[in-house]
Amino acid sequence: MGAIRYELIKTCKQSGARLGRLHTPHGVIETPIFMPVGTQATVKTMTPEELKEIGAQIILSNTYHLYMRPGEKLVEKAGGLHKFMNWDRPILTDSGGFQVFSLSQLRDITEEGVTFRSHIDGSKHFISPEKAIEIENALGADIIMAFDECLPYPCDYDYAKNSLYRTIRWAERCLKAHKNTEKQALFGIIQGGMYRDLREESVREMIKLDFPGYAVGGLSIGEPKDIMYEVLDWTVHLLPENKPRYLMGVGSPDALLEGVIRGVDMFDCVLPTRIARNGTVFTSKGKLVVRNAEYAEDFRPLDEECDCYACKNYSRAYIRHLFKAKEILGARLTTIHNLRFLLKLMEDVRQAIMEDRLLDFKEEFFEKYGYNEGKWTF
Amino acid sequence: MGAIRYELIKTCKQSGARLGRLHTPHGVIETPIFMPVGTQATVKTMTPEELKEIGAQIILSNTYHLYMRPGEKLVEKAGGLHKFMNWDRPILTDSGGFQVFSLSQLRDITEEGVTFRSHIDGSKHFISPEKAIEIENALGADIIMAFDECLPYPCDYDYAKNSLYRTIRWAERCLKAHKNTEKQALFGIIQGGMYRDLREESVREMIKLDFPGYAVGGLSIGEPKDIMYEVLDWTVHLLPENKPRYLMGVGSPDALLEGVIRGVDMFDCVLPTRIARNGTVFTSKGKLVVRNAEYAEDFRPLDEECDCYACKNYSRAYIRHLFKAKEILGARLTTIHNLRFLLKLMEDVRQAIMEDRLLDFKEEFFEKYGYNEGKWTF
Repeated sequence: MGAIRYELIKTCKQSGARLGRLHTPHGVIETPIFMPVGTQATVKTMTPEELKEIGAQIILSNTYHLYMRPGEKLVEKAGGLHKFMNWDRPILTDSGGFQVFSLSQLRDITEEGVTFRSHIDGSKHFISPEKAIEIENALGADIIMAFDECLPYPCDYDYAKNSLYRTIRWAERCLKAHKNTEKQALFGIIQGGMYRDLREESVREMIKLDFPGYAVGGLSIGEPKDIMYEVLDWTVHLLPENKPRYLMGVGSPDALLEGVIRGVDMFDCVLPTRIARNGTVFTSKGKLVVRNAEYAEDFRPLDEECDCYACKNYSRAYIRHLFKAKEILGARLTTIHNLRFLLKLMEDVRQAIMEDRLLDFKEEFFEKYGYNEGKWTF
Repeated sequence: MGAIRYELIKTCKQSGARLGRLHTPHGVIETPIFMPVGTQATVKTMTPEELKEIGAQIILSNTYHLYMRPGEKLVEKAGGLHKFMNWDRPILTDSGGFQVFSLSQLRDITEEGVTFRSHIDGSKHFISPEKAIEIENALGADIIMAFDECLPYPCDYDYAKNSLYRTIRWAERCLKAHKNTEKQALFGIIQGGMYRDLREESVREMIKLDFPGYAVGGLSIGEPKDIMYEVLDWTVHLLPENKPRYLMGVGSPDALLEGVIRGVDMFDCVLPTRIARNGTVFTSKGKLVVRNAEYAEDFRPLDEECDCYACKNYSRAYIRHLFKAKEILGARLTTIHNLRFLLKLMEDVRQAIMEDRLLDFKEEFFEKYGYNEGKWTF
């Protein structure tokens, strides 16, 4: 039984990519899928209805942030995260591990867990695997993540190896602490730095623990993309075919394509929403910085090929004006557009898998969208 | 002919308030009405569709701001303000007079016009009645306002008198400069400070100029409300019955009611949207500051009697969280709520006029909504 079930519909004959369905307590997700990030129980600038309109099937929210503010007990009192934020489709929460290691101050790691200071008010906190799961149980997401140590890049072999085994021990403790297995699926996270034997060892040990799904963690943290793809090549094919695979923190169009081709089903990243609020958008002709003066009198939509609300109703000139005038509607429109761009890309990817032509699709995408001309650096 | 036509449907037998319809090139407005303010070609945080959903029939935009940024010529190139901002219902633009006198630096008034420095970059500008109308013609709103001098409060009699006659001469020049009378209706503005004879003189002279509508200006600028109501008592009944009457800059529920009772048809104010972005909302129990700690675990809607999107879907606790976490959705929800509150109030006011019971309605409103207990100070 368990909270979720992954259904493999077909494998792309050309690329090996997987088309699937993930059944969750809040509905079915068509995979591969990109998950918009709603860090503080809101996808920045957007309503749930707007997310549905652009085709979002599942969103991610951040345990570290919600633990800090408003606190998981408040969310639990509100009836859980879905009800609190008015989102009735699936949610995934991370474990807080990544933020503890990247955002907080003065962290101190022991076998028991991590002591750190809040990035908001400097207050002291301790999170263990048990505590992380307790918080995630209170939040009530459909998919929750094990508490792991996120290594920096680069990281020396001995540290990576010791950390890996601790993360495996923490994973076991997470499984034992998890109290809501019928409504929340706990995913294990593959670590091991950029070392092949450690990644393989991580997969072997995690599979023994029989999680309902697996994430590949510790990537997209500053390493060259080639290295990320190499780690995926070593890792993903070893994971069980009947369970979903989630590549954490990846959201650039090229990396989504490369990840899917390597057998990944799920992705998340703040990139599309973060650059949107800064006035930068994805388009079918490459990156476009709509704040720039060259768009002051450009009355075309952000992307003439896009079907989103922003592109159907507003010009670059208007959106640029909104950014220059510091008007909130500007960030709303670019956020809708960037998320729609990625969700539409994933729709096209699923179609290409169905048609056994994902490698062709990738070449066409890179060619048409100016990828080979450097129009996609962020 | 002309651009607009006011149709008086009935007068409230109890209060004398007017129920009417204002026919404009972009549709019919049921009056009395409150107009949300979209200073920079956007009602802050909102889309046009959201404005329609809460029942907004007409919005106001500010000529001074649009002249400064992005410039009226750009808006004209975009096809006019309606098309630029994707709003197909009526728009009213002010003349820029109020902002020139309140926002800009180092203004210098002569018979010809006003020289001032931009509040954005300090650049020097000159606006005359002809220039103001030229800008408003380029923007293309359904209703445009004459360029006037807005007096400070208090203001001595001699200055107010001289200014009044200059504003009348400017009004004549505005009429002559107006190039688009079939698509844009130019309203005259009654000034005269807080002096009865000057207000009466202003009405007499403005009526001679035969504007298609009239505004009462120079109120809600810091004077006690009793004085504002007294000026309305002196002024409004002298205005032609067959033309719309607009009280500029008023948006608190009590002043809307008092204005309607004195024969006013149209109102605008930034109050509801400005306080919303600061976390303060109108409710049927008085003012509520949702940022306050007392709402941290309050899972009721902002106002249990409200039918808006925010109240139907979110709790005070969630909205408070959004404000504490500096999330844009918070300001979106409180803005929707406050505007809906005022638009619903005006719907109820129209119904009460229809039923000849607006004075009763006012008493009930003040009683029920805690007005007499000081719950409405902003």
